[in-house]
Amino acid sequence: MHPSLTDRLGGLAFGGDYNPEQWGRPVWAEDDELMRRARVNLATVGVFSWALLEPEEGRYDFAWLDTHLDRLHANGVAVDLATPTASPPPWFTLAHPDALPVTPDGTRLVHGSRDTYCLAAPAYRDAARRVASALAQRYGDHPAVALWHVHNEYATLCFCDHVAAAFRDWLRDRHGSLDALNDAWGTAFWSQRYGSWEQVLPPRATQWHHNPGQALDFRRFGSDLALAAYREQRDVIRAHSDRPVTTNLMLPGYQNLDLWAFGREVDVVAIDHYPDAPGLDAAADTAFGADRARSFGGGRPWLLMEQGANTVYAGDRTLAKEPGDILRHSLGHIARGSEGALFFQWRQSRAGAETWHSAMVPHAGPDSRVFREVVELGEVVARLGEVAGSTVTAPVAVLHDADAWWASEADGLPSGDLDYHAALRRAHRALWDAGVVADFAHPDHDLSRYRLVLAPALPLLSDAAAENLRDHVEGGGTLLVGHFSGVVDERPHARLGGYPAPALREALGVRVEEHRPLRRDERITLSDGTGATTWSEHVRLEGAEAVATYTHGMLAGRPALTRHGRAWYLSTLPDPADYGALVRRLLDEAGVERPWPPGVEAVTRGRWLFLLNHGADTVPLPRPAHDLVTDRVVAHVPPGGCAVLRTDEQA
Amino acid sequence: MHPSLTDRLGGLAFGGDYNPEQWGRPVWAEDDELMRRARVNLATVGVFSWALLEPEEGRYDFAWLDTHLDRLHANGVAVDLATPTASPPPWFTLAHPDALPVTPDGTRLVHGSRDTYCLAAPAYRDAARRVASALAQRYGDHPAVALWHVHNEYATLCFCDHVAAAFRDWLRDRHGSLDALNDAWGTAFWSQRYGSWEQVLPPRATQWHHNPGQALDFRRFGSDLALAAYREQRDVIRAHSDRPVTTNLMLPGYQNLDLWAFGREVDVVAIDHYPDAPGLDAAADTAFGADRARSFGGGRPWLLMEQGANTVYAGDRTLAKEPGDILRHSLGHIARGSEGALFFQWRQSRAGAETWHSAMVPHAGPDSRVFREVVELGEVVARLGEVAGSTVTAPVAVLHDADAWWASEADGLPSGDLDYHAALRRAHRALWDAGVVADFAHPDHDLSRYRLVLAPALPLLSDAAAENLRDHVEGGGTLLVGHFSGVVDERPHARLGGYPAPALREALGVRVEEHRPLRRDERITLSDGTGATTWSEHVRLEGAEAVATYTHGMLAGRPALTRHGRAWYLSTLPDPADYGALVRRLLDEAGVERPWPPGVEAVTRGRWLFLLNHGADTVPLPRPAHDLVTDRVVAHVPPGGCAVLRTDEQA
Amino acid sequence: MHPSLTDRLGGLAFGGDYNPEQWGRPVWAEDDELMRRARVNLATVGVFSWALLEPEEGRYDFAWLDTHLDRLHANGVAVDLATPTASPPPWFTLAHPDALPVTPDGTRLVHGSRDTYCLAAPAYRDAARRVASALAQRYGDHPAVALWHVHNEYATLCFCDHVAAAFRDWLRDRHGSLDALNDAWGTAFWSQRYGSWEQVLPPRATQWHHNPGQALDFRRFGSDLALAAYREQRDVIRAHSDRPVTTNLMLPGYQNLDLWAFGREVDVVAIDHYPDAPGLDAAADTAFGADRARSFGGGRPWLLMEQGANTVYAGDRTLAKEPGDILRHSLGHIARGSEGALFFQWRQSRAGAETWHSAMVPHAGPDSRVFREVVELGEVVARLGEVAGSTVTAPVAVLHDADAWWASEADGLPSGDLDYHAALRRAHRALWDAGVVADFAHPDHDLSRYRLVLAPALPLLSDAAAENLRDHVEGGGTLLVGHFSGVVDERPHARLGGYPAPALREALGVRVEEHRPLRRDERITLSDGTGATTWSEHVRLEGAEAVATYTHGMLAGRPALTRHGRAWYLSTLPDPADYGALVRRLLDEAGVERPWPPGVEAVTRGRWLFLLNHGADTVPLPRPAHDLVTDRVVAHVPPGGCAVLRTDEQA
Repeated sequence: MHPSLTDRLGGLAFGGDYNPEQWGRPVWAEDDELMRRARVNLATVGVFSWALLEPEEGRYDFAWLDTHLDRLHANGVAVDLATPTASPPPWFTLAHPDALPVTPDGTRLVHGSRDTYCLAAPAYRDAARRVASALAQRYGDHPAVALWHVHNEYATLCFCDHVAAAFRDWLRDRHGSLDALNDAWGTAFWSQRYGSWEQVLPPRATQWHHNPGQALDFRRFGSDLALAAYREQRDVIRAHSDRPVTTNLMLPGYQNLDLWAFGREVDVVAIDHYPDAPGLDAAADTAFGADRARSFGGGRPWLLMEQGANTVYAGDRTLAKEPGDILRHSLGHIARGSEGALFFQWRQSRAGAETWHSAMVPHAGPDSRVFREVVELGEVVARLGEVAGSTVTAPVAVLHDADAWWASEADGLPSGDLDYHAALRRAHRALWDAGVVADFAHPDHDLSRYRLVLAPALPLLSDAAAENLRDHVEGGGTLLVGHFSGVVDERPHARLGGYPAPALREALGVRVEEHRPLRRDERITLSDGTGATTWSEHVRLEGAEAVATYTHGMLAGRPALTRHGRAWYLSTLPDPADYGALVRRLLDEAGVERPWPPGVEAVTRGRWLFLLNHGADTVPLPRPAHDLVTDRVVAHVPPGGCAVLRTDEQA
Repeated sequence: MHPSLTDRLGGLAFGGDYNPEQWGRPVWAEDDELMRRARVNLATVGVFSWALLEPEEGRYDFAWLDTHLDRLHANGVAVDLATPTASPPPWFTLAHPDALPVTPDGTRLVHGSRDTYCLAAPAYRDAARRVASALAQRYGDHPAVALWHVHNEYATLCFCDHVAAAFRDWLRDRHGSLDALNDAWGTAFWSQRYGSWEQVLPPRATQWHHNPGQALDFRRFGSDLALAAYREQRDVIRAHSDRPVTTNLMLPGYQNLDLWAFGREVDVVAIDHYPDAPGLDAAADTAFGADRARSFGGGRPWLLMEQGANTVYAGDRTLAKEPGDILRHSLGHIARGSEGALFFQWRQSRAGAETWHSAMVPHAGPDSRVFREVVELGEVVARLGEVAGSTVTAPVAVLHDADAWWASEADGLPSGDLDYHAALRRAHRALWDAGVVADFAHPDHDLSRYRLVLAPALPLLSDAAAENLRDHVEGGGTLLVGHFSGVVDERPHARLGGYPAPALREALGVRVEEHRPLRRDERITLSDGTGATTWSEHVRLEGAEAVATYTHGMLAGRPALTRHGRAWYLSTLPDPADYGALVRRLLDEAGVERPWPPGVEAVTRGRWLFLLNHGADTVPLPRPAHDLVTDRVVAHVPPGGCAVLRTDEQA
Repeated sequence: MHPSLTDRLGGLAFGGDYNPEQWGRPVWAEDDELMRRARVNLATVGVFSWALLEPEEGRYDFAWLDTHLDRLHANGVAVDLATPTASPPPWFTLAHPDALPVTPDGTRLVHGSRDTYCLAAPAYRDAARRVASALAQRYGDHPAVALWHVHNEYATLCFCDHVAAAFRDWLRDRHGSLDALNDAWGTAFWSQRYGSWEQVLPPRATQWHHNPGQALDFRRFGSDLALAAYREQRDVIRAHSDRPVTTNLMLPGYQNLDLWAFGREVDVVAIDHYPDAPGLDAAADTAFGADRARSFGGGRPWLLMEQGANTVYAGDRTLAKEPGDILRHSLGHIARGSEGALFFQWRQSRAGAETWHSAMVPHAGPDSRVFREVVELGEVVARLGEVAGSTVTAPVAVLHDADAWWASEADGLPSGDLDYHAALRRAHRALWDAGVVADFAHPDHDLSRYRLVLAPALPLLSDAAAENLRDHVEGGGTLLVGHFSGVVDERPHARLGGYPAPALREALGVRVEEHRPLRRDERITLSDGTGATTWSEHVRLEGAEAVATYTHGMLAGRPALTRHGRAWYLSTLPDPADYGALVRRLLDEAGVERPWPPGVEAVTRGRWLFLLNHGADTVPLPRPAHDLVTDRVVAHVPPGGCAVLRTDEQA
């Protein structure tokens, strides 16, 4: 993490998005008082303020922002200052209709919500650069500013002509020649051969399936386009300010980004995290998001930029949290490397599209369960300042590659049940249930520090990545590869002669001859009693042994789960409990310790041990210790309780 | 009701839409004979005849209509003469493409069904006014004409540039200034501040959620636009005719209208009513529609303009009615104030989009169960002529406000299960099951004549309306308010400091601190055994007492159902049976009598008592009486039977 | 069948689509070797090669195709040479944007998959004719060419202005005058009367239901347009080549065609057939497709142009086949008249939209179960050469009419459960389960050679067709008519006075007075214990007797299943088992023999008896006989096994 944020704050960050422009003077005064009460030390300002900052094109109004920054500063609250470029004002639509986003079927979206711009449109990029530059010039050295927040949740895709032109440029860079592009996309099929660059389009509405190479490259391009837009603003800001710069990444949500690439370009990884189910699922999802955030930053401390004080987005409804969740979720993030706990937003909107999104100060006001828990959390976060800068080490990695994700969403795959994120989540959940902290890693990364690597969903795998996995096993690591892995290379071209990619075939000692997807509601049972769904494969052993075999149809008696030394291949999708048992078996074989009882989330960050007791039983500590959460010596952690202990004090 | 219709008819209206232009001379002759046989006295003519009346722009052909009006008149059938403006002819599309409707994503719809116009397009409005005026001039004094029927089922919304301009004018009127609009819509959020009126658009396709203030105002505008279009035609007609004018309102269907406002502008409220389920549900829905129609007209008699002789629209299919339903449904409407029973349509179409919509004379012809029941009904309606002009008084009201409905359909609400119409229907059904006749009332109305007021769904509530509800309770009335009520004001801005609106909080003696929506299929049980779904709330008592408490999660032991004197608050959604029991308890406490056994629908209209026996048992009368349905003295009503008794004869 | 194909091949066709342009020289060499190994004798070439053949507009490159045709010829493989017109190259989009397809809502689709053209666009038709002509000129006499394959799976509809103009021309031809069109479409309803031809449009996006006459005529037009496009290419080819010409028809899939009409214009009917469920369902569906193909060609031998070696398309996934299915499905087709067994495609694509579509040579290569089964099949097909040219006679017909299908898809029908293809499939399956071979026939056809005719779904029926059905019964044939039949004529206008069409009413001795659709999940039981769903009717007997009656609601005691001599009417939809029992009863009454036990598919083609044992028991033959499949004398057919016996050798 860029050193200056927690140094400036003198500890971990606590606070949230602050939109004073939605309120008036009496509320601002109350805000000051309540922020002090809650020990808020960081407020994200300006995310949606373009229309105020630049009320008409080229005319800026900073007076109101000056006031708020000075007020916050005077109140001891540092500012994470946002560029407002995620939400162009209404005047932008009228001035630059060509810079509005266009859907695949040609519908041009207009203002009325947010994110109505095309990242490839010169008029938008110019306007965004100008407003960011104006902000940086004015506030680059402002004493309140501790962090820069570029844009908000880069996510949108556009299919307009500007995008078409930019996509062509990107493709020229990637493929070098039209012949290479034609080869990569397999345009010999369906008479798609491109005779000139101008014939190449985004994957707009067409008659049947899209070309999977075109679709994949368009997602790559879209991510690179967002990254370029981010870098442009970042560099403009750096010209005027020495404060760290970041952008908040939405996990996993509607994000169309290669987060590894973003992790390399931000001074600190910042994420927005909203669980999609309550209770234990939310806690597990917190760890999932936190481990991803830490990993995208290469293990550096990172920042939980947004969470909901009382918000769980569950499909078509917003469920509420249980008492204590605010603390548990925040500690879950801090345990895994977050340098604080921030919320969207400080005060719940009284109007607008997110009126019902919860906040630190709810509609009901400070006399509320939520605000009281926020105040309690503020005290805890303040006491945890000493953990700032410390890091987390994980013995296990789950492989994640945006290319693999995007390849999982191609038209025409053998099954509609190939859910990339569900696969990642399932693998991470099995580790979380087992009490093990996991990193995420890209299949190209050095994996030597991991005893166990899970690759639950890697349909796309380059030769180099496959060799990397083989090297991991040859170096003594354990590897579990899931079904439909390594079936295409990076173009994406199918692997011939048997799946998966050659080096992985070699490592796993198998040759997959046929995919045999299961019917939608079909359940099968393996020879060892494992229940499974979704998928099966005709696997031939080439050195591996069958650990469990199929019992249905033509696969009866053939390998389902195989091992080849430390390299395991799972050609179907076991039920969660059975998958969990397999993962625990591999953890044991790999020598990964799991000292705490089930239900206890234990994470070591630097010299601190975080304990979150999600179970129904009180958990005794090996010996009484000083707990930073409660600020007293404790001998146990009660159900639902949390503790943060200094491990060197325990020793 | 305008006095002239039933005076002219000499009794209640009976008949339906009549489209002789679909047929030829031999059929017309049979129509005359069959109408006499069925005692038809009113035919709605011309609803879909624009293309015949004005075969090319500006050239009118009335000859065919002259013939039919004269023929009907000679046959003793009065005419409800329609302006044909709901269905512009094909030439209109070619002449005025700018006057076609446009969807939110910019698709311009063309002719090929009906309602392909934009109510804000000058070309359409001009054309509609001209054809209405031509009809009024020619037939304003025609002896056959007893009623004017403007347009048909106003319902459509358009998002074109004409609408944008009209919407801006409407907003200027409503808000006065752009600053006021920006404040009302909360445009400080998501950088939506409007710097000029021309930046304001209809809620067209955009990237994420629409602004709820914009969406709500657009629905209000849409209703006002339709009302203006109606009034324009009405006034043109009044210039040439002294017959009453109305328009038929579709309940609830796809109607985007504030029906209270329409009720004030029509000479007689006219509704089209199609149940969406068969059997008892259809009977209950009949009462629901009829009570709404009566209420929108302020208690005046009204008119059932359309029903299906054998049509129940149940999602993707048209179910048929059981024998006797034609009579039961028609009497259900007349009991609650309808001045007759009309159908769409007289003769089932042999071609076109509604070939399969049932009719008084089905495809099978007069030798059919349906037509025989129609003839029987005609005799009954004729005998009921004496009830014309009489009214119905209800001891209970269910609150309905189009603003609340539209607010229930905003993007970003806490739950996808907030179904406004289901809530109204549920409340009305509980009363219907209990044998109680209900009015609908607007929350601003004088409620003093109601012993019990149910407010099942009022998310939007102005200060004045909240005070009105408080006054109702203070005046001795009983009130039951449902969950998620009074959470926003009319702008719509959230209520701060605790829900609901201040005066209502005071009346109910509660402060709602948090909404806690339930999961999609979650069921909870309250302390008193009540089963509930959908929703829960963190309610704090401020004077009220808890009648039932929650038993789940953090709400365990906290209030679910409260009472504060006569003011009850229900913060969850009980199962229908439990909700019904609560309503019966409140009816009893409020002193509302329910003298008839379950299954008997008993309605007093003027000096007549309507009895519909929906149960399986024969229901004895207190004493034998002359029944207008069977035209004889009866001592009981058999299962499925109906009776209409003169109450003063009974006394 | 055109005599020259199997003559040229010296037997049945075996092979598949061959796209060598997707590969390079080493693969071509392997292809040659593997084709010899598999006894491939026919390869479909060029289906998707437009972009290679005409890399820029007007410049042709045949060199690569010369090479492949010569190579194939040298290897003993004949060529089914395709015109590439189903997939215009990317340059076509840029050169002729007006010739791209437009959806009903006005979205113009672009290249990026295939079939991005409008069949009515002059630029497309010109380009298609030119490339077809160029191919025909160059390869008309090429010794490799044995068959011409025009286009691929004609299927698309377009709603653009070219289509509008062509639709008007077509309507002028069909209706003669605008008055006639207005009458046929019932434009008096909903004010749709057309005052000039230019007002007539395709059924583009509109506000509510489309006019059913317009919708039906548009489907007819669309089929005729595709047929005209086919004929144009066919005639261009015939000018330069004496080889037979065909186009491959997708069954049933997304085909918008009147296949009877196509059957008359192709030299040999060719179909693409992909089952949508595995196992027994796939086998039954194979027979369904094969019987349709034979019937569309008037009983002539036909050609299975495409099947999947290992592909079963089941909704959102591709299920795999069981061992032996490749043989069973191929023999299922050959038994019913196919002159061979071809696949899409020879070698599985390594890239592009159909990477995961299976092939004769899968990704895994020749060392695979699939290729081994392909080789085995190649040997069997070679041994079956003697059956070429022989035909199949069926004692039963199932009626199929594209007009009836399209009428079943109108807006506003009484039920969303009127699934035309499901009805046809259900009827055919009942016959297949009973071991009986069926033809399909058009209701206008001479039906005298059929002992039993099933009409499961004929909502549209002309007077002439109704008379034809009556004549069938009067001539001693048995007839079973399903619910909702004969309800409209060909315009489509509803039948008045009682359904169905007069002559059919007479034949069946019933008058249907009311349709009474059932609720979505409603099940009823008839008096004879039959379970039924979906539909019921109020049927009045006019000569018929009730074989089973309803037991629910107002229909209790009224006829459900009736017979009038040999004419049966079934007014509801029995469960499959009950429907099967009824069909078997009718087969017995009609004297149709079923000599083989359940599970055995027995088909006599010419002097050969095909036996496919789908059951679990070994089936003994009456006496040992030489089996062409195994090439030895067999006494029984094992479970899953197949045999082809010369019946005259048995005698």
